[in-house]
Amino acid sequence: MPNPTAAMLVIGDEILSGRTRDANAHFLAQEMTKAGIDLREIRVVSDDRRAIVDALDALRSSHDHVITSGGIGPTHDDITADCIAAAFGVHIDVRDDARDLLQSYYDSRGMEFNDARKRMARIPDGAALIENPVSIAPGFTIGNVHVLAGVPSVFQAMLASVLPKLAGGAPLLSQSLRVQRGEGDIAGRLAEIANDFPDLSIGSYPYQTDGVYGSNVVIRGADGARVDAAMSKVNEAFGT
Amino acid sequence: MPNPTAAMLVIGDEILSGRTRDANAHFLAQEMTKAGIDLREIRVVSDDRRAIVDALDALRSSHDHVITSGGIGPTHDDITADCIAAAFGVHIDVRDDARDLLQSYYDSRGMEFNDARKRMARIPDGAALIENPVSIAPGFTIGNVHVLAGVPSVFQAMLASVLPKLAGGAPLLSQSLRVQRGEGDIAGRLAEIANDFPDLSIGSYPYQTDGVYGSNVVIRGADGARVDAAMSKVNEAFGT
Repeated sequence: MPNPTAAMLVIGDEILSGRTRDANAHFLAQEMTKAGIDLREIRVVSDDRRAIVDALDALRSSHDHVITSGGIGPTHDDITADCIAAAFGVHIDVRDDARDLLQSYYDSRGMEFNDARKRMARIPDGAALIENPVSIAPGFTIGNVHVLAGVPSVFQAMLASVLPKLAGGAPLLSQSLRVQRGEGDIAGRLAEIANDFPDLSIGSYPYQTDGVYGSNVVIRGADGARVDAAMSKVNEAFGT
Repeated sequence: MPNPTAAMLVIGDEILSGRTRDANAHFLAQEMTKAGIDLREIRVVSDDRRAIVDALDALRSSHDHVITSGGIGPTHDDITADCIAAAFGVHIDVRDDARDLLQSYYDSRGMEFNDARKRMARIPDGAALIENPVSIAPGFTIGNVHVLAGVPSVFQAMLASVLPKLAGGAPLLSQSLRVQRGEGDIAGRLAEIANDFPDLSIGSYPYQTDGVYGSNVVIRGADGARVDAAMSKVNEAFGT
């Protein structure tokens, strides 16, 4: 069975303006690899309704799962939930289950559950809530789209509750070898090895340290014996 | 005159597998904001011909400029230049000007200019070279697409030579205020202010430090007087 595929949609002007450096994509990439889910694409778009809906429609039709981050807070620029409802063509309003969660949270802290905070209880019809143990306001899953918060601690907590529900494949295995030779020296033989193992992903990632060029050769695949076999060839060719 | 728009295309399996954390997108976002270019979208795709060509065609038709990073080295997984030629429907081969640059570089270091290294001189017909003072192998510009290396030091050096050639608009100005109140407390009034300044981008970015919730309110726009005016309103409402 091939591994399920996924895409990520990061929503937020603050990433595109360079004000904030996104941390969630890298975290998700690592978690997906561990879970055996093949993350194929990441998109970052601005807080713009058309941009969000278009990206969401493109990604959800071409991947098994879509994870979004950002835009589900209480302020006027938090429009993710409404865009998702629009993309799925379903109704959205403050929903009782989400409102009850937030109401008791704010009551217990003696804080006003005002209109802005009620925005965080806007959940599209048919969506299932995703628990938020950090700050209560829930994410949600609708169809194959999982809507998570942008604040990294909340994103990570929500992802922990979503991940077990995604049908993962065999974990993608990875082996790497650090070669103290420039890519141009190893490329010829490496291409031959890649050609002999079409079922694996064999990549070369250059680095430069103290003026010395080197390459990290990385072999990835779901079949451990094949990864081992390819790594033997790489070791024969370039190992010290 | 509205600010020119741009999109970025990051090419590389190593980002999607979580092995490497991309650094170029955040750097580019900051530089674009300084240059008055409106970065609207970032996409990360794998080293896959179909994925690269499709993303490139979508981005170049909807933005004034597209900046790519990654996939222009000497190894078999470096397919960016060929994909770009395919997207533009032009011929690609080792080109004299690029080959001469690389030939003298390797000659001067007593290194073999082998077939793998010659791959780095593959330049689509009609493209203009982008200088690479770090490791010589050039990037290139074709149409509105600027093809840069993925290694951050090289990416940054190439961007420095490309940026002055892009028609920039007025630099996007930005002011921010750190408000020690949760977003839910400030959202109502902030939405009113945003409504009064439709020409500006007014965003709120939550943070949590030592259990205290706060928000950074950020106002962006090209007209300094308008940004000042909006910030006065924000200060009146939430300043201490």
